Amino acid sequence: MTSEIVRHNVTRRWSDAVVHNGTAYFVEVPEDPTLPPAEQFRQVFEQVDRTLARVGSDRTRLLQVTIYLPNPEDLATFNELWDAWIPAGHAPSRACLHTQLAAPGYRVELILTAAT
Amino acid sequence: MTSEIVRHNVTRRWSDAVVHNGTAYFVEVPEDPTLPPAEQFRQVFEQVDRTLARVGSDRTRLLQVTIYLPNPEDLATFNELWDAWIPAGHAPSRACLHTQLAAPGYRVELILTAAT
Amino acid sequence: MTSEIVRHNVTRRWSDAVVHNGTAYFVEVPEDPTLPPAEQFRQVFEQVDRTLARVGSDRTRLLQVTIYLPNPEDLATFNELWDAWIPAGHAPSRACLHTQLAAPGYRVELILTAAT
Repeated sequence: MTSEIVRHNVTRRWSDAVVHNGTAYFVEVPEDPTLPPAEQFRQVFEQVDRTLARVGSDRTRLLQVTIYLPNPEDLATFNELWDAWIPAGHAPSRACLHTQLAAPGYRVELILTAAT
Repeated sequence: MTSEIVRHNVTRRWSDAVVHNGTAYFVEVPEDPTLPPAEQFRQVFEQVDRTLARVGSDRTRLLQVTIYLPNPEDLATFNELWDAWIPAGHAPSRACLHTQLAAPGYRVELILTAAT
Repeated sequence: MTSEIVRHNVTRRWSDAVVHNGTAYFVEVPEDPTLPPAEQFRQVFEQVDRTLARVGSDRTRLLQVTIYLPNPEDLATFNELWDAWIPAGHAPSRACLHTQLAAPGYRVELILTAAT
């Protein structure tokens, strides 16, 4: 039995989200990399909320999030906003690494898995 | 049909493990980052065993492991202990990268997926 | 109910691919790290095609790909070959990071998830 794959906003290079077997896979970077770090983090959380809504999920159904912060000094700010954004009792599995992103200016990249 | 999500040890910031649709997602760093590297690796494998038991899985049911070793000189030691820890015939898909972790002192961070 | 896990080419340290619950997990680095970057990228895409065939999948059924490029100057070349390799309308979720790989000489490592 082949499960259907649903792709959202497919471009030549990537899809904004891919859903298969009740699980959504997606990646987010802030739309505006010229914003200061805290604004980039707020923006990327709004984008995650929009993508979750698009795939029939929401913030309470995140399974795993890998956080790439290229600037270690951003960690405290990121965590403060993250803690306010995650609904109590619904935190996902989470890893946080410091590594260089492929595009300049971005202060965060998120790889996310959610239940639809 | 909505599959249930089960979260283990939920804190404000993360869950120690999240189970959905027969798959467990979790992240481990050693409990004691003051230990020497080999002891950190032994410790983190014990923690993985405990988390696997908590989600109704075990070492033979790992699907994918991503290994972050911030210190490249630790690789040989890590691999020696890994090879002894992985049950013959049950090795997961595995990637190993060198990147800076978000917390100082830790010699390893693991992102794991297992079948429950 | 326990879903079966199928492992392909199991070694002491890793499996080339692991399939569970309709999802395949695998990691690829080019077989020949002495090749120039573009040739390494072509080679790794061929390896991905072979692994996908082995698990009963193909290039149109990739769900998520995380790309590690240790040399940022390789990004344009990688993207050009990627864009030609991905079938139109079937692009996966994709993240691209610059980080040091565990083995010297390799210009790319891919972590992939596909529907079988």
